[in-house]
Amino acid sequence: METFYPQLSAEFARLLLTLAGRKIAVVGHARPDGDCIGSQVALARLLASRGFDVICVNADPVPRRLGFLLDGMRFYRTDEVLAMTEDYAAIFVDCADHGRPGERLKHRFPSPVAVIDHHLSNSGFAGANLIDSDSAATCEMLAGIFFDNGWSVDAGCALALYTGILTDTGQFRFNSTSRRCFVLAGELVARGASPVHAGYEIYERETEGKIRLLQHFLASLRLACDGRVCLGSLAPDVFASTGSTSEDTEGLVDYARSIEGVAVGVLIEVRSDQTVKASLRAKDPAYRMDLVAAEFNGGGHACAAGLSLKIDPEVFSHRLLVALAQRIASVDRAAKL
Amino acid sequence: METFYPQLSAEFARLLLTLAGRKIAVVGHARPDGDCIGSQVALARLLASRGFDVICVNADPVPRRLGFLLDGMRFYRTDEVLAMTEDYAAIFVDCADHGRPGERLKHRFPSPVAVIDHHLSNSGFAGANLIDSDSAATCEMLAGIFFDNGWSVDAGCALALYTGILTDTGQFRFNSTSRRCFVLAGELVARGASPVHAGYEIYERETEGKIRLLQHFLASLRLACDGRVCLGSLAPDVFASTGSTSEDTEGLVDYARSIEGVAVGVLIEVRSDQTVKASLRAKDPAYRMDLVAAEFNGGGHACAAGLSLKIDPEVFSHRLLVALAQRIASVDRAAKL
Repeated sequence: METFYPQLSAEFARLLLTLAGRKIAVVGHARPDGDCIGSQVALARLLASRGFDVICVNADPVPRRLGFLLDGMRFYRTDEVLAMTEDYAAIFVDCADHGRPGERLKHRFPSPVAVIDHHLSNSGFAGANLIDSDSAATCEMLAGIFFDNGWSVDAGCALALYTGILTDTGQFRFNSTSRRCFVLAGELVARGASPVHAGYEIYERETEGKIRLLQHFLASLRLACDGRVCLGSLAPDVFASTGSTSEDTEGLVDYARSIEGVAVGVLIEVRSDQTVKASLRAKDPAYRMDLVAAEFNGGGHACAAGLSLKIDPEVFSHRLLVALAQRIASVDRAAKL
Repeated sequence: METFYPQLSAEFARLLLTLAGRKIAVVGHARPDGDCIGSQVALARLLASRGFDVICVNADPVPRRLGFLLDGMRFYRTDEVLAMTEDYAAIFVDCADHGRPGERLKHRFPSPVAVIDHHLSNSGFAGANLIDSDSAATCEMLAGIFFDNGWSVDAGCALALYTGILTDTGQFRFNSTSRRCFVLAGELVARGASPVHAGYEIYERETEGKIRLLQHFLASLRLACDGRVCLGSLAPDVFASTGSTSEDTEGLVDYARSIEGVAVGVLIEVRSDQTVKASLRAKDPAYRMDLVAAEFNGGGHACAAGLSLKIDPEVFSHRLLVALAQRIASVDRAAKL
């Protein structure tokens, strides 16, 4: 097999030698996603198979949808870890900065021995900083590092790594999806990761409430700005009436964006305390949703940004559409020049 | 690079030698999908680059969503090809039998020189029968054959092959998704296939009508058989009222199936002439939807089957739910033993 991360793989192998005999805590970020839990499970399994005493630590519970990766593995919460007096060498995964696991875990692990991460903004806060922002997922990095070192990857480890690549590439669709993502996914499948299993667990276990919420959101969709913006909204009582939670709003805005001709999809959540939360998604980074969100004290990335503020929902929709119309017109005008 | 299809690749190379100087028609099946159009575009580009005079032939138009693969290539329809008097060596792709392109094209090309296909049921009707039912897509086979022979694959050819693998694996999620699919996808990305481009064209260009239709379908969903079946229906006037067409029903039934605990998702289309059309989708092949569909003169596969018959819709729903309840109970009982 080819070599994926020659430098990082050697660095990680050297690091493990220095950790011989130490207990290891694999620390993920708050509100963990597939790449975070996948990285933690995979690294913990790999380390355990190489003789280390290892625990996984997270401030928040493992999401229901990702439970299939655990295979009996226990994840420790902040309070439990604060009550432990043992010395742990902490390896942070998928954390762009030291505080991403939460302030209390930052203080419990003030000097991580390593961070393994793919975020461009990573500040390099650990002893060893294994950072590669060209990678689509931390799981991609771990898979490459394990293969490069010739370490045995069992089916559970392979499934965890595969799931992290799957989710952080948006099912192999984001811009970050490279040849390396596919080659590594293939090697993970060869070691027992099942694409149909991961796909089922991640994408085919919707709650009825989520489907009802989607229906309400779709019913609310309307086109604006000459069909360039599609906007949907959720009323304060929708979660109760559909049996869903605010977590279930994930992915809704993509339906608004997916319509042909639409440049920007918008989801507006109206809260009962007269605050609104809005998610903005552009098809093209040229539209710079971060700049539009910033006009309302929000922020984010060029294609995906958000904001939250106390304002009358009608007034807000109007102002947002004005801002979006200006932004889109200026970009479209520049593209025509 | 490794070898993907040692036998088929050599056979195809030998075949091309025998075709030197002949005009070639690359024939796809009626109602073409991503794997069909992808295979036709890729094979035609490859043959043209190797000096052949080649045309693509299809009974039906290239679907709007797949137009991005053409890059100026013209697809000929049945009438146009019947009017041509030239002798063509016909290569059928993605066709499980000789009649899949339509009876008129079967008669126009009575002796195909080759068929390249991945369907288990392929009868082997051509001079050279390059069939591999372990492959997830015909595009997977073509990619492997091109690479095995060391033939140059340009970006347009790579994009077409990538799109066929993408669509025929259901975004790398079906059971057929193998290590080889991923390895080949990676090599295609390395040659210029853009996952973000293909994903955008295939999944982010919905019509507004399709989204409205989805909303109507979701509003109709109801659970039955103790939550093991989720059934949604579309009334005869829904296409007119939402601005959609019957083509837009593709994928709807997956939402019914995706709910946690549901074993079988059902879509019932009620036509104005009192016929009903039903699509059945199971999460697990053990439920054998083909057997349930057969009770209503339909057919299909274990996980995906369909039927169409003249019957009162209420009577049909009742009978179908009885049949599904029996089928699910017998499978669940067997699983418990």
